[in-house]
Amino acid sequence: MPGVTLTGEEQVVIVLYPGFTALDAVGPHYMLASMMGATVHLLATTPGADAVPSDLGLAVQPTGDLGGAPDRIDVLLVPGGSGGAAEAAADPVLLAGLSELGSRAGLVAGVCTGTLLLGAAGLLRGRRATSHWVARHLLARHGAEPTDQRVVTDGHVITGAGVTAGIDLALAIVARLRGDGYARALELQAEYAPRPTFGTGTPELAGEQLTGVMRDLFAPLVESLSAAAPGHRFVG
Amino acid sequence: MPGVTLTGEEQVVIVLYPGFTALDAVGPHYMLASMMGATVHLLATTPGADAVPSDLGLAVQPTGDLGGAPDRIDVLLVPGGSGGAAEAAADPVLLAGLSELGSRAGLVAGVCTGTLLLGAAGLLRGRRATSHWVARHLLARHGAEPTDQRVVTDGHVITGAGVTAGIDLALAIVARLRGDGYARALELQAEYAPRPTFGTGTPELAGEQLTGVMRDLFAPLVESLSAAAPGHRFVG
Repeated sequence: MPGVTLTGEEQVVIVLYPGFTALDAVGPHYMLASMMGATVHLLATTPGADAVPSDLGLAVQPTGDLGGAPDRIDVLLVPGGSGGAAEAAADPVLLAGLSELGSRAGLVAGVCTGTLLLGAAGLLRGRRATSHWVARHLLARHGAEPTDQRVVTDGHVITGAGVTAGIDLALAIVARLRGDGYARALELQAEYAPRPTFGTGTPELAGEQLTGVMRDLFAPLVESLSAAAPGHRFVG
Repeated sequence: MPGVTLTGEEQVVIVLYPGFTALDAVGPHYMLASMMGATVHLLATTPGADAVPSDLGLAVQPTGDLGGAPDRIDVLLVPGGSGGAAEAAADPVLLAGLSELGSRAGLVAGVCTGTLLLGAAGLLRGRRATSHWVARHLLARHGAEPTDQRVVTDGHVITGAGVTAGIDLALAIVARLRGDGYARALELQAEYAPRPTFGTGTPELAGEQLTGVMRDLFAPLVESLSAAAPGHRFVG
């Protein structure tokens, strides 16, 4: 395939914190780990953890912890977490770790409420960025410009909307690292020709009534994320 | 929301075998575990395993093993595995276990090459079913009717195409168990309004050249799946 880099040695770091959303991490993991020659590190924020529990229970075994990140980081990716993002965003040690990794990563990527963690770590200042629709506005508190798109690229910062957007985000990363042809091949490999059954995947598509119900359901989450994100508190 | 069952007590079993594809399991897990009140069991085919390694390395911690399946099973779901499905399909003990669970499950579901495991366990005879595009034709060896659709429902048997189709499959299951309104809400929760970057997710969309490249790449996998699927060998 012309214009395609078939193999490489990219070092990818995916951060796992208690209460992360497994699909936010595993969607991108599929695409990034399918790049021949790349190494994907699953790094726990809790040193020595055997497994990191996600917000819906499924636990993933880390390959190491944040302290064991590789010297070279081509991609840093942070998943969201309906159970854990707010707590993580209020943890200064965790944010300092993210800030350090992000400052030396070739690409900084976040999915869903994971983008708020990037923001709290000071990695989104002045950047256009997206997040889950219910929490996107909170990005402004971190000096980012909330942008209503599924995948937003601003320089070396790439962010994705809620949960399933991680798959689209990762394809954009693959295209950037290996060329469009490689990403086209991975779409076919993953048979990624999605057919949402109901077509209600955004507030605009879902309409006011359903969106209102879900907004009410997520109000406590937004409240806790909001409380954990008082502007430029941590990184000045 | 009218016509929606807000809570329930469904017992869901997702089978984890060494070399499974994590996204095949985690996509559906997200949707099924988001059903309030439902319990999702992640059952390893290897008794006593601390974690089950997937084909791309990421390992998931099981909640038990096949021997510890609940008495009532509302959904049995089997993921595919480019590294492990062929080996699993040649393991008579594993197939006997799947056959037993499937015979008493309310819904029997498979994603990607996981549908070939259902076939090898004798659970697809006379059923319309789908699988990953590269291996779909092999379903005929198990007495199923290969069907070129992303999600195929035939009675209590629901099958999905390659990898990412597990998300669509799971939404169909949620709609069946909890009503369309619940599934609509989960589409919005997961912000499932996918935008494949390149639109090459099926052989028809990708065209002959790219499909040929990927078919060559997967030829050894299809060969091994083929060798592990000599018709009605196991379940007579």
